[in-house]
Amino acid sequence: MVIVMKPQTPETEMERIKRKMESLGCQVQLTQGENHCILGLIGDTRKIDPSQIQANEHVEKVLRVQYPFKLASRMFHPDDTVVTVGEHRIGGGNVVVIAGPCAVESEEQLMTIARIVKDYGAHMLRGGAYKPRTSPYSFQGMGEDGLKLLKKAKEETGMPIVTEVMCLDTFDVVAEYTDILQIGARNMQNFALLKKAGKCQMPVLLKRGLSATIEEFLMSAEYIMSEGNPNVILCERGIRTFETYTRNTLDLSAVPLIKELSHLPIIVDPSHATGKWSMVEPLSRAAIAVGADGLIIEVHHQPELALSDGAQSLKPEKFGKLMHAVQKISASI
Amino acid sequence: MVIVMKPQTPETEMERIKRKMESLGCQVQLTQGENHCILGLIGDTRKIDPSQIQANEHVEKVLRVQYPFKLASRMFHPDDTVVTVGEHRIGGGNVVVIAGPCAVESEEQLMTIARIVKDYGAHMLRGGAYKPRTSPYSFQGMGEDGLKLLKKAKEETGMPIVTEVMCLDTFDVVAEYTDILQIGARNMQNFALLKKAGKCQMPVLLKRGLSATIEEFLMSAEYIMSEGNPNVILCERGIRTFETYTRNTLDLSAVPLIKELSHLPIIVDPSHATGKWSMVEPLSRAAIAVGADGLIIEVHHQPELALSDGAQSLKPEKFGKLMHAVQKISASI
Amino acid sequence: MVIVMKPQTPETEMERIKRKMESLGCQVQLTQGENHCILGLIGDTRKIDPSQIQANEHVEKVLRVQYPFKLASRMFHPDDTVVTVGEHRIGGGNVVVIAGPCAVESEEQLMTIARIVKDYGAHMLRGGAYKPRTSPYSFQGMGEDGLKLLKKAKEETGMPIVTEVMCLDTFDVVAEYTDILQIGARNMQNFALLKKAGKCQMPVLLKRGLSATIEEFLMSAEYIMSEGNPNVILCERGIRTFETYTRNTLDLSAVPLIKELSHLPIIVDPSHATGKWSMVEPLSRAAIAVGADGLIIEVHHQPELALSDGAQSLKPEKFGKLMHAVQKISASI
Amino acid sequence: MVIVMKPQTPETEMERIKRKMESLGCQVQLTQGENHCILGLIGDTRKIDPSQIQANEHVEKVLRVQYPFKLASRMFHPDDTVVTVGEHRIGGGNVVVIAGPCAVESEEQLMTIARIVKDYGAHMLRGGAYKPRTSPYSFQGMGEDGLKLLKKAKEETGMPIVTEVMCLDTFDVVAEYTDILQIGARNMQNFALLKKAGKCQMPVLLKRGLSATIEEFLMSAEYIMSEGNPNVILCERGIRTFETYTRNTLDLSAVPLIKELSHLPIIVDPSHATGKWSMVEPLSRAAIAVGADGLIIEVHHQPELALSDGAQSLKPEKFGKLMHAVQKISASI
Repeated sequence: MVIVMKPQTPETEMERIKRKMESLGCQVQLTQGENHCILGLIGDTRKIDPSQIQANEHVEKVLRVQYPFKLASRMFHPDDTVVTVGEHRIGGGNVVVIAGPCAVESEEQLMTIARIVKDYGAHMLRGGAYKPRTSPYSFQGMGEDGLKLLKKAKEETGMPIVTEVMCLDTFDVVAEYTDILQIGARNMQNFALLKKAGKCQMPVLLKRGLSATIEEFLMSAEYIMSEGNPNVILCERGIRTFETYTRNTLDLSAVPLIKELSHLPIIVDPSHATGKWSMVEPLSRAAIAVGADGLIIEVHHQPELALSDGAQSLKPEKFGKLMHAVQKISASI
Repeated sequence: MVIVMKPQTPETEMERIKRKMESLGCQVQLTQGENHCILGLIGDTRKIDPSQIQANEHVEKVLRVQYPFKLASRMFHPDDTVVTVGEHRIGGGNVVVIAGPCAVESEEQLMTIARIVKDYGAHMLRGGAYKPRTSPYSFQGMGEDGLKLLKKAKEETGMPIVTEVMCLDTFDVVAEYTDILQIGARNMQNFALLKKAGKCQMPVLLKRGLSATIEEFLMSAEYIMSEGNPNVILCERGIRTFETYTRNTLDLSAVPLIKELSHLPIIVDPSHATGKWSMVEPLSRAAIAVGADGLIIEVHHQPELALSDGAQSLKPEKFGKLMHAVQKISASI
Repeated sequence: MVIVMKPQTPETEMERIKRKMESLGCQVQLTQGENHCILGLIGDTRKIDPSQIQANEHVEKVLRVQYPFKLASRMFHPDDTVVTVGEHRIGGGNVVVIAGPCAVESEEQLMTIARIVKDYGAHMLRGGAYKPRTSPYSFQGMGEDGLKLLKKAKEETGMPIVTEVMCLDTFDVVAEYTDILQIGARNMQNFALLKKAGKCQMPVLLKRGLSATIEEFLMSAEYIMSEGNPNVILCERGIRTFETYTRNTLDLSAVPLIKELSHLPIIVDPSHATGKWSMVEPLSRAAIAVGADGLIIEVHHQPELALSDGAQSLKPEKFGKLMHAVQKISASI
Repeated sequence: MVIVMKPQTPETEMERIKRKMESLGCQVQLTQGENHCILGLIGDTRKIDPSQIQANEHVEKVLRVQYPFKLASRMFHPDDTVVTVGEHRIGGGNVVVIAGPCAVESEEQLMTIARIVKDYGAHMLRGGAYKPRTSPYSFQGMGEDGLKLLKKAKEETGMPIVTEVMCLDTFDVVAEYTDILQIGARNMQNFALLKKAGKCQMPVLLKRGLSATIEEFLMSAEYIMSEGNPNVILCERGIRTFETYTRNTLDLSAVPLIKELSHLPIIVDPSHATGKWSMVEPLSRAAIAVGADGLIIEVHHQPELALSDGAQSLKPEKFGKLMHAVQKISASI
């Protein structure tokens, strides 16, 4: 950490800050520049709150040298983390495709779609039983009944289940049925939920918040890991920008960047990112080409009857085309 | 709601959509434009999911005519909502100042600050007992011990308490101690928490999410209201933009806009918005000038020792100066 | 265009607007909804200024049905535009790679890099002679001397030249030397420059502005085309978002979206988008996979001596690796 | 400037960078931290290109200590700059109101509005003769005829003129007629235009770009000043964010922040920021309360006939109300 002092800071003030930093376990080295005096801190500064330092009126700014995440950092864990789910491995160069409806709507709907995506080569089944919806008047999911249907689909197709856990109240019931706990974008900084997920050993699919920086995203993974659960799978799903022709802006740069900074696997959700079925296949190709460890894709056999997110759901044959394209890209890199 | 069809859509397809919309209780009026045919829906379209319509390949786009919020809308509730807390009234032209430390840190700290802000004219006391922090390694708040100290400060100063409720687990204990339940920016779309808050009758201070549109903000208020609790106070606290010299960008336009769209009171938090104490007073003046119903301000007698957000905390005399400036602005409008 | 009136608008006011719209050449159809009355306009509304309508106090909002671009729109020009530059064709399924230094710095530098990128299979040579720089104290380019060097490099390698034109003053001299006129991101809405470029028939490489919506981007292409020049090549180069770990956020969704909306070719600049050499190759792969018509890549044999943008320049062997990867992706789709 | 090296950087590499920095005139001080070695540069680093340093594969990141602007910086020019225009002074605590139509449309229109705003107390007259428009099909302004009408309005009312200069071609003709040269948001980084404006001594009203950081904004002022013209007036006019209910997000935090960083005057344009007349008065009050040196406001006697931006133009009596409100706020601070 580097502390930049304002010009003309009295030496006594500088000494005071120096001593305080030393009392927090850091060594301090002073560099007198042309206008600004700089204090360089040596030691583990991850627990020092820059805001506290910045509260001093003589401090111009505080620059961080270390990244604030540790367990999620590749610096301290150079090898790729591989999360195992049944016979599938996520991370380390494998490409996993998770597919299914946005929400579980009925037995007939879920079983139909599960069979279709299985036939086209999907590895796991997605489907929401508890749905976070912007409007209280929208369909909120089937709840535990939906979970039971997911279990049934798993029994028939053999595909592991990925479903969202929205709050502490229903955590245990979701954990009982699912293979991967999905934490949605809106809950990426629901710290109570992150801690709870960290206390079990189940794989957690953590989606990037709509306006979360990559640093905050990795800090949320750190929350889970710091409670003892190393099985975190990251998911880029689009960030909020000024563009309105797409629902969100899929940030594919995040994939190679996170691969540099972290050892955790990262998959991509092009369905939520764009909100538009016609863009899902091209962006799936791009996601695999950029190095993602997998995809999570919404598929519906009757999108215009879907109770949520119909506009972004692929029809079966289009999903088949996507699987084919993705395999070709995957083979070529 | 207006549905824009793609050019050359077959008439049978148009008829199919028309019939479907009618089955949902809407009348449909067709307008044939130069290139696009347009279907205008008449009736309450708030429960129609535009995404389902957009799933149809012949649909170019869906344009909404009505706002999706109803209980929060001024159209159906022309008079200002006034939320009463003890002897204080929030909304309807009153200016309320809530002040206190970011986090409760100790009895001595809280009591000192409570007395100071009371002396300078603050109406209510803020202070976090459960703190949402980006890093798992940062101070997470004193928990119930913090709540007890807040109660003590209330007993001594008479000021009602505002403190944050972060999750379902600790909802009841927070509700027992506080006068206003604060729901933080990161939880603005924690729908389980919103529903829980909607089931009680306590005043709820709902902060705008970092990247929440005004529409989403009002929809989150709608969640609380639709469960039966009309006592919602909105709080603008800065949105995330590309600018890095300030922590967030305080969106003061939101104040007059929300006053047009909604009857709910709205206050402003300049401390979190800027993250910088020197900007708190000017932006407080601006917030009152633009028409906000109040302010929530961080004050600390020793900001450089604060366990969180020291950089944005005002020292006592600076808070006094702020109160004076705010009163003058308030009198002039 | 759809005009939504406020509830309780007097009928006389509605009539007044109706008549005004009719005087502008549109037919108007009235739909009386539950709360709002809606006016649907039939005819070419591209020249109607929505702001003028919105100025009426009784108007709630104005929704556009047609896209505002016409010459750039695929609706009126279903086939892909292919821009021919020497023996190369941009658009229509071809993949073109433009490579070279950020700025022309010296004869030795340019010739060295030109030979290298030619050897590795680049089709055209980029290099800035006039450089837009955020700071007046940064290197501003070699000017006409740089153009002369580019010409020399073209003579030796046979590669057509792409270089930026920054202003009207130097337009003619740049046009004399270059094969493709590049209009940079900061000038995307320099309308005088767009009109000038529209008055010649040279290919124009138009970069998306840092915060330009796709609609504005296509409207800038429309500026050029409406002056008579159909040879526009679009270039996605990253947009400004809240993320700070990358310089900009490369918006690859823009590629399939623009392919839907427009017939113009679109290439991708991953160097400027990320500002980081290590991310250029993965994002180049993704750009080709998503369907881009080409790439523009910065290459430098000694990036740590480059006078601009060294951090994002690829070393020769890394560029070779990129070309190889891109060819494999390109073959697989 | 602080250079953070990657862990395990060979010492020879560190030495090489150290020597290079010394050759650029800086002293270098090494600090060996836990994981990273840090090089602190002492001296004027404003001319060092961080990108060149970052090109070195061993460099983790480069952190800037100094702000990159010098002439615009308050550090080297502690007193407020006051720009004099006729009898008016902008900066240093004065509040100046510039008002008028978005575009000059006719003699009758301009003279009517000029008289109105003069009567209500405006100090200067705005009005566009050359209009930057997103669409080539929109009204592009009256050109020199518009300038002549502005001159006429000045002769009658005595108000100095503020009008936009869009390009080099028309620079001289605009400069001949106007008192303040306005450089619009889209041209904030049109460096050729900035340099041209820097070569004269006329006051320049520089608008902040739609997605310009405060740093870039001040760097554009630096461009003008570095050519010899110190008479720069800054103008905050809203930035582009994800919010769609307002056209832009007015960033009032920019005002106190720029007052800290720079000595230049800064005024606010609430008309363009919001695009909505009903929000102009509240935001004008806020702008004055936050400390702005003035306002620039669009007024039209018949907004629903305005050829541009009617939706944001105030009717005369509403402008009168605004002037009254602003005077009261101004008196109270």
